[in-house]
Amino acid sequence: MPLVQVDLDRALYQEKGAQIGEEIHRAQVEIEELQIPDADKFQIFRVHDEGEIFGDPRYNDLDRKKLIVVQLLMVNRYPVALKNRLFGNIARRLTAIGIRPQDVFIAVTENGYEDWLPGLAPEDVPTEA
Amino acid sequence: MPLVQVDLDRALYQEKGAQIGEEIHRAQVEIEELQIPDADKFQIFRVHDEGEIFGDPRYNDLDRKKLIVVQLLMVNRYPVALKNRLFGNIARRLTAIGIRPQDVFIAVTENGYEDWLPGLAPEDVPTEA
Amino acid sequence: MPLVQVDLDRALYQEKGAQIGEEIHRAQVEIEELQIPDADKFQIFRVHDEGEIFGDPRYNDLDRKKLIVVQLLMVNRYPVALKNRLFGNIARRLTAIGIRPQDVFIAVTENGYEDWLPGLAPEDVPTEA
Repeated sequence: MPLVQVDLDRALYQEKGAQIGEEIHRAQVEIEELQIPDADKFQIFRVHDEGEIFGDPRYNDLDRKKLIVVQLLMVNRYPVALKNRLFGNIARRLTAIGIRPQDVFIAVTENGYEDWLPGLAPEDVPTEA
Repeated sequence: MPLVQVDLDRALYQEKGAQIGEEIHRAQVEIEELQIPDADKFQIFRVHDEGEIFGDPRYNDLDRKKLIVVQLLMVNRYPVALKNRLFGNIARRLTAIGIRPQDVFIAVTENGYEDWLPGLAPEDVPTEA
Repeated sequence: MPLVQVDLDRALYQEKGAQIGEEIHRAQVEIEELQIPDADKFQIFRVHDEGEIFGDPRYNDLDRKKLIVVQLLMVNRYPVALKNRLFGNIARRLTAIGIRPQDVFIAVTENGYEDWLPGLAPEDVPTEA
């Protein structure tokens, strides 16, 4: 479980939302060291109208136009080098489907293994508080 | 202050949003060890159209259909066992109002006591930077 | 890079969204110790209909009406006193444009320097995973 949360422009979402989700997922799965199984796809898309997302083109002088913000909530377990590979791989795959790499903004937030409930089987629901 | 953030389907929100919010709140309050007072209800609902939330039914083989994603931003203070009780209690209460337990997805993110401003009284607003 | 994420009422956003974003940004930039350059403005606005955001007026007895929730995702580097100054400064500037200070809710989440990709130049996109 990383939980992938993407804030992006409505038109882009309508045109390519499913593909964007799939490319981000593939970018995780194909880096074996991440140990994220193919079955572990959990994603939220938050769709925005013009003006609701702003990415500063003056920051390190990069021509940002329509930011797509990918937030990954994931367990604290990956070394820096592996995160960098993941970031690069997401950028590579999104670029390949026509997204400008300048607009690929990624932020990771971390928690622990104990911080997740990915659904429960009906028979596992407790009967009291 | 936990800040409760719920991403969910629009139809479900329209039918049961207020109830969902109340059940999550009650699930926190009734576990005394959490020490979350009844007056401490802070919630955001993010409402989604079809397709914007995806929960993988292949992950631990659980028949997910329409995920409701509950994110709890809370102070780092609770032991694992207490978090587990909270997760179970939220699932129990949401199940009781007709939500499939397979669709109850919870993720906790933590911060510190110093990371919150829950509003200010007018007389406490500083007059300079 | 702090990433500023604001959940707020639709009418308020339509009337003052750009101004709110600018005041929050200025509140960061003008506290020099934060070392946030003017060029470092990254913001997401999530716009809500009536009822989707709830802030409890009973919590420390503050007359909350229409919460504006400002989440700052920032690198873990600031001491408590500096965060407090930042919170006060955001409240001060938002109050100055007509927002009730009781409704200014701020929460910080932290990550590390290595947890960001703020876009990539085309020539820096990797060619393989």
